[in-house]
Amino acid sequence: MFKEVTYGMVGGDLKALIGECHRKALGLDPRAKLVCGCFSAIDELNDECAEAYHVDKSRVYYNAEDMAKAEAGKIDFVSICTPNFVHYSAAKTFLEHGINVVCEKPLTLTVEEAEDLARIAKEKKLVFAVDYCYSGYVMCKVMKQMIARGDIGQIIAVNANYIENSFLSLLAEKEQVNGRIWRTDPKYSGISNTCADDGTHVEHLVHYVTGLKIKRLLATTDTFGKKLDLNDNIILEYENGVHGAYWFTQVACGCPNEIDLRIMGTEGCLEWHQTRPDEVVYIKKGEAPRTLCRAGDGIDVPAGKLARVPFGHPEGYYIAIANIYRSVIDTILKLKNGETPTEEDLDFPDVETGVNGVKFFHAVVESAQNNSKWVEIN
Amino acid sequence: MFKEVTYGMVGGDLKALIGECHRKALGLDPRAKLVCGCFSAIDELNDECAEAYHVDKSRVYYNAEDMAKAEAGKIDFVSICTPNFVHYSAAKTFLEHGINVVCEKPLTLTVEEAEDLARIAKEKKLVFAVDYCYSGYVMCKVMKQMIARGDIGQIIAVNANYIENSFLSLLAEKEQVNGRIWRTDPKYSGISNTCADDGTHVEHLVHYVTGLKIKRLLATTDTFGKKLDLNDNIILEYENGVHGAYWFTQVACGCPNEIDLRIMGTEGCLEWHQTRPDEVVYIKKGEAPRTLCRAGDGIDVPAGKLARVPFGHPEGYYIAIANIYRSVIDTILKLKNGETPTEEDLDFPDVETGVNGVKFFHAVVESAQNNSKWVEIN
Amino acid sequence: MFKEVTYGMVGGDLKALIGECHRKALGLDPRAKLVCGCFSAIDELNDECAEAYHVDKSRVYYNAEDMAKAEAGKIDFVSICTPNFVHYSAAKTFLEHGINVVCEKPLTLTVEEAEDLARIAKEKKLVFAVDYCYSGYVMCKVMKQMIARGDIGQIIAVNANYIENSFLSLLAEKEQVNGRIWRTDPKYSGISNTCADDGTHVEHLVHYVTGLKIKRLLATTDTFGKKLDLNDNIILEYENGVHGAYWFTQVACGCPNEIDLRIMGTEGCLEWHQTRPDEVVYIKKGEAPRTLCRAGDGIDVPAGKLARVPFGHPEGYYIAIANIYRSVIDTILKLKNGETPTEEDLDFPDVETGVNGVKFFHAVVESAQNNSKWVEIN
Amino acid sequence: MFKEVTYGMVGGDLKALIGECHRKALGLDPRAKLVCGCFSAIDELNDECAEAYHVDKSRVYYNAEDMAKAEAGKIDFVSICTPNFVHYSAAKTFLEHGINVVCEKPLTLTVEEAEDLARIAKEKKLVFAVDYCYSGYVMCKVMKQMIARGDIGQIIAVNANYIENSFLSLLAEKEQVNGRIWRTDPKYSGISNTCADDGTHVEHLVHYVTGLKIKRLLATTDTFGKKLDLNDNIILEYENGVHGAYWFTQVACGCPNEIDLRIMGTEGCLEWHQTRPDEVVYIKKGEAPRTLCRAGDGIDVPAGKLARVPFGHPEGYYIAIANIYRSVIDTILKLKNGETPTEEDLDFPDVETGVNGVKFFHAVVESAQNNSKWVEIN
Ligand SMILES: NC(=O)c1ccc[n+]([C@@H]2O[C@H](COP(=O)([O-])OP(=O)(O)OC[C@H]3O[C@@H](n4cnc5c(N)ncnc54)[C@H](O)[C@@H]3O)[C@@H](O)[C@H]2O)c1
Ligand SMILES: NC(=O)c1ccc[n+]([C@@H]2O[C@H](COP(=O)([O-])OP(=O)(O)OC[C@H]3O[C@@H](n4cnc5c(N)ncnc54)[C@H](O)[C@@H]3O)[C@@H](O)[C@H]2O)c1
Ligand SMILES: NC(=O)c1ccc[n+]([C@@H]2O[C@H](COP(=O)([O-])OP(=O)(O)OC[C@H]3O[C@@H](n4cnc5c(N)ncnc54)[C@H](O)[C@@H]3O)[C@@H](O)[C@H]2O)c1
Ligand SMILES: NC(=O)c1ccc[n+]([C@@H]2O[C@H](COP(=O)([O-])OP(=O)(O)OC[C@H]3O[C@@H](n4cnc5c(N)ncnc54)[C@H](O)[C@@H]3O)[C@@H](O)[C@H]2O)c1
Repeated sequence: MFKEVTYGMVGGDLKALIGECHRKALGLDPRAKLVCGCFSAIDELNDECAEAYHVDKSRVYYNAEDMAKAEAGKIDFVSICTPNFVHYSAAKTFLEHGINVVCEKPLTLTVEEAEDLARIAKEKKLVFAVDYCYSGYVMCKVMKQMIARGDIGQIIAVNANYIENSFLSLLAEKEQVNGRIWRTDPKYSGISNTCADDGTHVEHLVHYVTGLKIKRLLATTDTFGKKLDLNDNIILEYENGVHGAYWFTQVACGCPNEIDLRIMGTEGCLEWHQTRPDEVVYIKKGEAPRTLCRAGDGIDVPAGKLARVPFGHPEGYYIAIANIYRSVIDTILKLKNGETPTEEDLDFPDVETGVNGVKFFHAVVESAQNNSKWVEIN
Repeated sequence: MFKEVTYGMVGGDLKALIGECHRKALGLDPRAKLVCGCFSAIDELNDECAEAYHVDKSRVYYNAEDMAKAEAGKIDFVSICTPNFVHYSAAKTFLEHGINVVCEKPLTLTVEEAEDLARIAKEKKLVFAVDYCYSGYVMCKVMKQMIARGDIGQIIAVNANYIENSFLSLLAEKEQVNGRIWRTDPKYSGISNTCADDGTHVEHLVHYVTGLKIKRLLATTDTFGKKLDLNDNIILEYENGVHGAYWFTQVACGCPNEIDLRIMGTEGCLEWHQTRPDEVVYIKKGEAPRTLCRAGDGIDVPAGKLARVPFGHPEGYYIAIANIYRSVIDTILKLKNGETPTEEDLDFPDVETGVNGVKFFHAVVESAQNNSKWVEIN
Repeated sequence: MFKEVTYGMVGGDLKALIGECHRKALGLDPRAKLVCGCFSAIDELNDECAEAYHVDKSRVYYNAEDMAKAEAGKIDFVSICTPNFVHYSAAKTFLEHGINVVCEKPLTLTVEEAEDLARIAKEKKLVFAVDYCYSGYVMCKVMKQMIARGDIGQIIAVNANYIENSFLSLLAEKEQVNGRIWRTDPKYSGISNTCADDGTHVEHLVHYVTGLKIKRLLATTDTFGKKLDLNDNIILEYENGVHGAYWFTQVACGCPNEIDLRIMGTEGCLEWHQTRPDEVVYIKKGEAPRTLCRAGDGIDVPAGKLARVPFGHPEGYYIAIANIYRSVIDTILKLKNGETPTEEDLDFPDVETGVNGVKFFHAVVESAQNNSKWVEIN
Repeated sequence: MFKEVTYGMVGGDLKALIGECHRKALGLDPRAKLVCGCFSAIDELNDECAEAYHVDKSRVYYNAEDMAKAEAGKIDFVSICTPNFVHYSAAKTFLEHGINVVCEKPLTLTVEEAEDLARIAKEKKLVFAVDYCYSGYVMCKVMKQMIARGDIGQIIAVNANYIENSFLSLLAEKEQVNGRIWRTDPKYSGISNTCADDGTHVEHLVHYVTGLKIKRLLATTDTFGKKLDLNDNIILEYENGVHGAYWFTQVACGCPNEIDLRIMGTEGCLEWHQTRPDEVVYIKKGEAPRTLCRAGDGIDVPAGKLARVPFGHPEGYYIAIANIYRSVIDTILKLKNGETPTEEDLDFPDVETGVNGVKFFHAVVESAQNNSKWVEIN
């Protein structure tokens, strides 16, 4: 029986942001071992990584294609942590070589690319996860199960934000040059910056937690004279007629990566903030607001059991990613061992989720460019 | 030299909500004395009020017209605290008899009525205030002066909510019957419930604090099968091209009268919540967030001086209204004494502010009824 | 039947701190009218007050004795808002002239004086209230009733603070001179500054809320080279053997008048902070923490009904004092009308409460001056 | 040059609490590899662990002595994660075999044992760390450096709590039986439960952050009829004459592992809570309170650079432990490579720190058992 998995990584060199988070999250899982990679577009950096990550030099590659070819049948999955424009080609290569994929979001630059990946993954019966990391927080899973069970009745309103300041400095600059240039350059980032980057997290998280599907949306986007959106306001209509509003901004002076989520129902409401991810405020109709705390009393849905460290000790961001990987690895191991993954094993954002994200930011941009008209999704 | 004012009240019987707040707020000002009133549409209640409020029975009236006629030249102002549909006729009567008016919001049911009041007040050179009470909080004045001084640079985004639960129970009812029936009945409340009632507060407060003027807006409103809106989502474009979003709801399970305000600028941002009105979070670009506290250190705009009780002792809601009345009374006394009111004296929501509110909720309803198209204001 | 009361004030001139709060709190009660006073030790200030407070000049006095003599039988009560060293003589005079008294805290400089006032008030059957204002907050009354009903089981631990910064600047000064000099000068303030001033509030509030009586205590006090205590740490043993700890400081850089209260019981716990007086955190054993909000859902003790403004609109500090006065006036009117005040009417801090406060700070100072030995109370 | 370390573990079987946290924390460091262990007192559990932790069965041992002997010269350090009473014998064995030690707190049951370990470690020049994990939080290091630099001037008062509910249920039980029995049984836990277990964390953390050394203390402890303390109140005098107060309780209904820290100085104050470990409230004299956020703006001490995940993404508890291990491993590798560890490398709680903790809880118990007399430390 298989009990361990090996994995490779594309992107994630010593200076990269998210690759390190993936490695740390996987470091929390004793079953996973990093064995190969193509960590950087720059060869010397790649070699440095091999040493720092304790990966055998013979398994360091200088492009994704070579890696996929050489590692086919040898690794259990690959984690793709490159800029957006590399996702499609890299993911496709690994799928075609029969390797399961965990890919960063947004999945691809275009809807066609995203759907192509979904098609191949399905055909090849490969596991494909997208790192919508925030749905990995235990309390997001708790909210999902509470809502599914009917704790807040029927949903009547949704309000969500993703607020941060990573591009505020851009507004003061004449030229669009800085270290994270690829994010604000359409060539590397696609048609959207803020919405693709942060907005898709909210789009996914709301769907994950509530089950609501977007029917149509309208939007404004602000570029403030730059090439891509930096501040987005969106009104949504879900398939059941309920309305919601999202606000995404990357020019929020001094604000952290704050995600705010409020779900109003006929029998209760739920509120969550990523700055305090271990807490959910739950108000049951006619009762005082309660603060549900991860690992604390008063949580009676199964996800409450996923807590790892005791009440009052914050679990933090790596655990969110680690929870997604835990499910991915559970699924991969079950499949390797000829077993059927359970619903719990499969509780990770899959390739369809990634497709939805790409559709979402395309719809937002389309609406904004057409005087905020309603744009249908699907 | 005049140093005191006398006033009358229309509405505000023993069971009414807001009239009591006006009397308490005025009770905080030793210069003001309640001397007459038409407190209720029901005669017996009216008489009971006279006794409870220590008003001479001879000065209790059974309709606004009689009161205006009898009290012309005798009182300094009238406070109108009746349901919305009574505001116009009552206010008009008092103006026509030369009496200054403080009126509850929303000013009137229609834009025409509101503009009519503005016209008469102007012609007669009478003082006309509208009780947009939240702009009376000291910290809202502090934010206004900080923004005017440039503390947050140029505004680039606005986000605001008014969230409460007063009509959640309505959703569970077959018939629209409850004690506060007039609010949800178009006959008494006009074309809007939530937007007129709570939304106009936000519309005013954002304008008050930022100086921004709305150019156009688009909206969705949800009635959930009832006659009037109970949940509104709005995207706004201000005259300078900046976008904002407002969310108003009266079906937010268990939520207090929560007003959330976030103003993002190129050099800083400000955040305020009515549940903690004595605090403002101010983030200056490149620095750690600060919590400015009424009467605490670090506030260097003149409004900081308006604080009444020491740091850490919350001032509360009555003070917000009392601050508005303080300015109204300052103005009235200056005028009576032949002096010219200063800008600070005039720092209360005037009749034009009331007109803007009525235009605002009309635009929201018009957009919502036209597939969320953009509606220009003015 | 009597329905109104008139009162006089000693202290509380235009620059005084607490007198203004009393007048504002009484301004919220339409039954009370200020008719006379001896507002200042300085005669000119006294005259200015008469005008500002709309008090007839003939009823302004230049010492408490004259006032008591002239107003005996004419006013229902007097509010004493002078520095500590004046309380005893002033209160005694009014009592001796048969006038009910509301006095500021700490009641007197010595235990003997305090007990003397208690004796006279009892003999003369006069109403005597002490302005321990914080127990006037609705949520403190809610906690009291919850505990009395057994909601948290048996109390097992208490922790409370009063933290503020009013004398931090003193530490940087060579000489002890500033506007509030009387507080730090033993001649005017007695043997204690911080403990008498702020500590007695906590001593009273804990007793009010929990019913616990102090058996003995031990303490350290820090004077930092000044004449009186500025920072106190106290461990207490209550009569039932439970321990508690209090921390009082007036040198807490930048801290508001923060009062923190935590009561732990075998079946639940309660937490309250004066910076958010409308909220209580209640944790019932085995359940998630709830935030009880004044006027919100989930409060089922009678005190919940005392809320004046709707949920989400903070009531503020004046209301706390006004609630104490409401009970005092209820009691006075009942007695005038030959009725018996109910327990609810009598829900204000009485003269015995004032005596306890004086005993408390004496015990603290005695312990601190004797190497922190245990000092019995009573 | 050595770049990796291998380690063994004593304690930490599949059901144990803290061992898992150590392994996860070390999993975040790509340099560390678990290669051997004696994970449980029960042999079968030990074998299960080998598999789950991917440790070669040949390197699983059934007592610490055998392990130390067999692994001498082979592993870089051992992590001791057993109940308190095992710490001394296990640590001693490893030291005697020349193996560096990381040991859980409290270091030992008696002061003599603790001093013995310190002596041996010193003689053998071995690295010895104690897992006072909370000082590993980045923001605790930030506070330490701010205070050392003089940001709050001279310290004038300290107040700290450790509040949790792990033994509340004990109060309702007749017999002292539950899964964590060893903690409340003097045989396994020593003379103190709450103070040794939680109190020593606070004792260390205050010293770590402020540099203050305890001169003497007095205390009450409550056992509520059980064998060991469950609720402790302590007043401390530091060597410079400043006073502080600590409150430790394990019977705080529904409270998380809440650690509250407030340090008052002549020029500023600092406040930190473990439930929000990424934030510190800093008030500079005369300015508004600031919230310093890990990885956010406005932190200008070197420790600010230790942040791992971006602003707004909480780092969580594992990172605190991982930060301690990072320094331990840095130190071990430097020493192996013949280099001298820097002050930053050595920034982990060492064996002297462990000794201080044992002295602390002994002094607390001694005071409590002697009518709360002052007990000198050292
Ligand atoms: N899930 C999240 O919350 C989250 C957070 C941050 C970033 N992201 C996503 O992660 C991805 C990477 O973002 P980042 O911030 O880490 O970017 P980054 O610029 O910090 O790192 C990108 C890495 O990819 C490498 N790279 C670039 N082209 C490559 C190629 N052709 N082959 C191999 N390696 C290549 C770079 O050398 C670098 O190591 C993006 O898609 C981004 O949207 C997601
Ligand atoms: N500024 C605010 O925050 C705020 C808050 C609440 C209400 N309001 C506004 O205040 C107004 C009153 O609201 P409320 O909640 O107090 O309503 P309410 O129903 O509690 O009280 C209305 C009062 O008006 C009296 N009344 C009705 N018709 C009258 C007439 N023809 N003549 C004299 N009196 C008459 C009623 O007897 C009653 O005393 C509304 O316009 C509402 O929108 C404003
Ligand atoms: N309950 C509370 O929370 C609270 C808060 C603040 C003050 N206090 C108490 O209130 C009292 C007054 O404090 P304050 O801060 O208002 O002081 P203050 O110095 O601001 O005012 C004292 C007032 O008393 C007047 N006065 C002094 N001697 C007098 C005399 N012989 N006859 C008449 N008037 C005289 C002064 O002119 C001044 O008007 C003190 O006992 C204080 O402890 C209580
Ligand atoms: N630093 C912290 O914040 C923190 C938190 C929790 C526990 N602790 C400390 O960690 C230690 C362990 O606590 P825990 O909660 O994990 O306890 P636990 O009872 O959950 O685990 C103890 C482990 O030690 C094993 N063990 C017992 N005797 C052994 C022996 N002779 N040889 C080998 N293994 C043995 C047990 O089988 C078990 O695996 C205690 O000293 C405790 O004070 C520290």
